[in-house]
Amino acid sequence: MAVYTHLSAEDLADLVHAYDVGDLVSAKGIAEGVSNSNWLIETTGSGGQGARFILTMYEFRIELSDLPFFLGLLDHLSGRGCPVPRTIHDSEGAAYRMIGSPGEAGKAVALIQFLPGVSIGRPTPAQARAVGAALAGIHLAAQDYPAVRANAMGLSEWHRLLDGCGKEGLASIDRSLPGLVETELAFLDANWPDDLPRGTVHADLFPDNVLMLDEKVSGLIDFYFACTDMLAYDIAVTHAAWCFTSAGEFLPEISSALLAGYGTVRPVSPEERAALPVLARGAAMRFISSRAYDWLNTPADAMVTRKDPMDFARRLSFYGAQGARAFNF
Amino acid sequence: MAVYTHLSAEDLADLVHAYDVGDLVSAKGIAEGVSNSNWLIETTGSGGQGARFILTMYEFRIELSDLPFFLGLLDHLSGRGCPVPRTIHDSEGAAYRMIGSPGEAGKAVALIQFLPGVSIGRPTPAQARAVGAALAGIHLAAQDYPAVRANAMGLSEWHRLLDGCGKEGLASIDRSLPGLVETELAFLDANWPDDLPRGTVHADLFPDNVLMLDEKVSGLIDFYFACTDMLAYDIAVTHAAWCFTSAGEFLPEISSALLAGYGTVRPVSPEERAALPVLARGAAMRFISSRAYDWLNTPADAMVTRKDPMDFARRLSFYGAQGARAFNF
Repeated sequence: MAVYTHLSAEDLADLVHAYDVGDLVSAKGIAEGVSNSNWLIETTGSGGQGARFILTMYEFRIELSDLPFFLGLLDHLSGRGCPVPRTIHDSEGAAYRMIGSPGEAGKAVALIQFLPGVSIGRPTPAQARAVGAALAGIHLAAQDYPAVRANAMGLSEWHRLLDGCGKEGLASIDRSLPGLVETELAFLDANWPDDLPRGTVHADLFPDNVLMLDEKVSGLIDFYFACTDMLAYDIAVTHAAWCFTSAGEFLPEISSALLAGYGTVRPVSPEERAALPVLARGAAMRFISSRAYDWLNTPADAMVTRKDPMDFARRLSFYGAQGARAFNF
Repeated sequence: MAVYTHLSAEDLADLVHAYDVGDLVSAKGIAEGVSNSNWLIETTGSGGQGARFILTMYEFRIELSDLPFFLGLLDHLSGRGCPVPRTIHDSEGAAYRMIGSPGEAGKAVALIQFLPGVSIGRPTPAQARAVGAALAGIHLAAQDYPAVRANAMGLSEWHRLLDGCGKEGLASIDRSLPGLVETELAFLDANWPDDLPRGTVHADLFPDNVLMLDEKVSGLIDFYFACTDMLAYDIAVTHAAWCFTSAGEFLPEISSALLAGYGTVRPVSPEERAALPVLARGAAMRFISSRAYDWLNTPADAMVTRKDPMDFARRLSFYGAQGARAFNF
């Protein structure tokens, strides 16, 4: 949650001039993003009206070859009326640019539309309903998005990350973790579905990545885990991200509202419904795996706050014990 | 350079409602401020027009009892047409509020007008001239500011901080530092002027704290070192902060332009002029002392980038050797 790279006013002004958005008026580094640096940029705009953008510099973890998928998806979804920021293309039509000193490899940057709204900490049922509907909205709108990207954070990657942690590493986080991981990975290997409707999914729709104005979703952002996977898996990820208190308590009213909201826009088939408890266990394992790996591999002086993998270990146990009831909607 | 405290959308919305500025539309934590957390806030405004503010939460180093001096100064200067953000007072007229959970001591926050502009990395002479003029402008406009605040970062504090570093600590930064500090502190003790015109000074006018639009100063910000001291000392601080490259090379054209710009608004007396080389050595020592102290006392995992005290040791040596020439304007 930091700005990793210093861009001077001169760098920023030069960059803005590569786009047809007028002159730079203001630039503030914002404390968002773990894999990238972000600036809230204001320009004089191309008409008389000022315009605002998020400038994103891709710092870590994101493959340059994936950027066309991510940035094209923003354009596709915003073009179909979803509350998704569009990518601003430069004067030559490019969705991203490389910047850096001559001779250096440089870093990729993209200029993204700014959307109003704030990220909600404790959603109301009405807000959860709106989030569910917005998620279904992007699932439908992305049906004809032609690009494909494999889910780099799928079942085989959970195995790889958790193997990398080792049993001792996992036990150093919590002594219950190695056993939970072993049992659950075996269960997921045996039970992971592969015959459910697929499409483009967000795959990381935490409250941080949803902007709201009152009970309306004004923005879905941060599509940098988006990929082609089962749509119901995205429901499961969103459920795991929204339907618990920070202390880990299940919120049945939020769960019902989220799922009902989704269903108003895209009906969930009986097969998807039946698979949701398993998919939710997978969603929990996805965040356990990356958080445990980061927990053990993040230097103490990194400018990143480590996230406790045990938050999702508790959710995983909940889904194992009560998933059928939670998804009985 | 971080946001130290998490404020939820609900916390922010509640806070905004204590002011007559409409409803919260957007809030982004911004990567500015070492002693405080800052958010760029947008609201629906009190008229039909949206409004933007900086919300500052005072985290470290700032005494609550000093806030009325700082925040009142913003109002005083902006009321006299200086490019300084005004303090937004809450519905009951208070310049700052305490927030936190019931029973906690809480933290002070203030809502400050947002000003456009960007901080310049490599100023042009025209920009340096504008900065000099703006500095003189606040010196004149603050002449009838009735409040007084002693400079907590004056000569006696440099002694205290550098004593706290110890000779070994200073030598661990650079082996030349203990000798330089000893010689220069003795020189400053013997030669520090006390009979120059005094008033309210900014005392920290680095490029970071100046917002510009092209060659115009659109904002002077971050008055949290402002105090009552010699006006010429503020010229010296600003000179030390602006007139060198990051590699430490003196920029004579920027120096001339800064000093000339100041003189167009407030003439510098012969006594002040003669004292500037000494004051500039003091200004350099002020930043050596705080940076050396922080260098030795900042934990490696702090979310703050330590600043190299040697940048100002080189400037101090420059002022000792060539100060008379640099200030021969």
